[in-house]
Amino acid sequence: MPTFHVEMFEGRSVEQKRAFVKAVTEAAVNTIGCTPESVDIIITDVKPENWATAGALWSDPRPESI
Amino acid sequence: MPTFHVEMFEGRSVEQKRAFVKAVTEAAVNTIGCTPESVDIIITDVKPENWATAGALWSDPRPESI
Amino acid sequence: MPTFHVEMFEGRSVEQKRAFVKAVTEAAVNTIGCTPESVDIIITDVKPENWATAGALWSDPRPESI
Amino acid sequence: MPTFHVEMFEGRSVEQKRAFVKAVTEAAVNTIGCTPESVDIIITDVKPENWATAGALWSDPRPESI
Amino acid sequence: MPTFHVEMFEGRSVEQKRAFVKAVTEAAVNTIGCTPESVDIIITDVKPENWATAGALWSDPRPESI
Amino acid sequence: MPTFHVEMFEGRSVEQKRAFVKAVTEAAVNTIGCTPESVDIIITDVKPENWATAGALWSDPRPESI
Repeated sequence: MPTFHVEMFEGRSVEQKRAFVKAVTEAAVNTIGCTPESVDIIITDVKPENWATAGALWSDPRPESI
Repeated sequence: MPTFHVEMFEGRSVEQKRAFVKAVTEAAVNTIGCTPESVDIIITDVKPENWATAGALWSDPRPESI
Repeated sequence: MPTFHVEMFEGRSVEQKRAFVKAVTEAAVNTIGCTPESVDIIITDVKPENWATAGALWSDPRPESI
Repeated sequence: MPTFHVEMFEGRSVEQKRAFVKAVTEAAVNTIGCTPESVDIIITDVKPENWATAGALWSDPRPESI
Repeated sequence: MPTFHVEMFEGRSVEQKRAFVKAVTEAAVNTIGCTPESVDIIITDVKPENWATAGALWSDPRPESI
Repeated sequence: MPTFHVEMFEGRSVEQKRAFVKAVTEAAVNTIGCTPESVDIIITDVKPENWATAGALWSDPRPESI
């Protein structure tokens, strides 16, 4: 409480996720005055074919302008 | 037209989900005055390595304090 | 530790929300085998001008076909 | 900088998603005055057993009344 | 039944939202083969103090590098 | 390009949010190998009457067992 939903490209290892949730939880505790126990983080692994920026899927070659 | 998004740990059977959406829909209809047809429920199955509380992944051994 | 996000039209009273979260929590506990303490529900009150179905805002007169 | 989250039933091809994100991005640019580069779209493929309407999973036979 | 959640900065008029949901619904119908009636769009108006990119709130002056 | 959605109780100051997004962005950059520019954070301020745990709204007195 805060509750985080984090979408990122798939491919991160459990080790990276472990370090990530520890660091993000500490960042929250240090800045908004909550307890660690109140912090929930839910990660969604997103396939590049499911994320688009500027109208193009990340599984496709990016247009030069991005 | 309430729309529910529900995140839960993976592993529930279709039977459990079937009972769950029926019961939650009835709960909504009985308390906020909507029709059953207006209730949408979307379930997200979350892997324990993608959920953290208190800075630790649920795929890891929990610290004693939680 | 299911976490619910529920979007509904604004206008429900606190009494309705109180009854709603109690009933939905019981529905979850009874069907997917979680503890009441593990159930979080976050409600989002949505203005009709921020919800559309079939390409028309709910703040506008509905087309006959819906 | 609109950010879209779109839930749809699984089964769309990459070609459909490619056309979809292109068309949705253009729709946003043309109507709310944002740049294409500011539009992010994240698609979630949902299994029919994880979506319910009117209290019934879409993986189940639909009741006649819907 | 795609369901869209769209976060954008607050300040769009109802006219802009009306045009937006019409265009986005058409974009979906034309590209992924759904009916207009199945398309729900929920818009969230976000205050600049509630959105950050590159570690800076959009209510603050942007660093030069963005 | 992780995208964060963070729900927290309303009442945090802009100063707290500023520190929060800076710290969370650094936490992400340091642990999952993304650039600061790729990190988006969207905060949702939640009223206590819109958040429930264990079947009770946070705007109500908490039962002793929580």
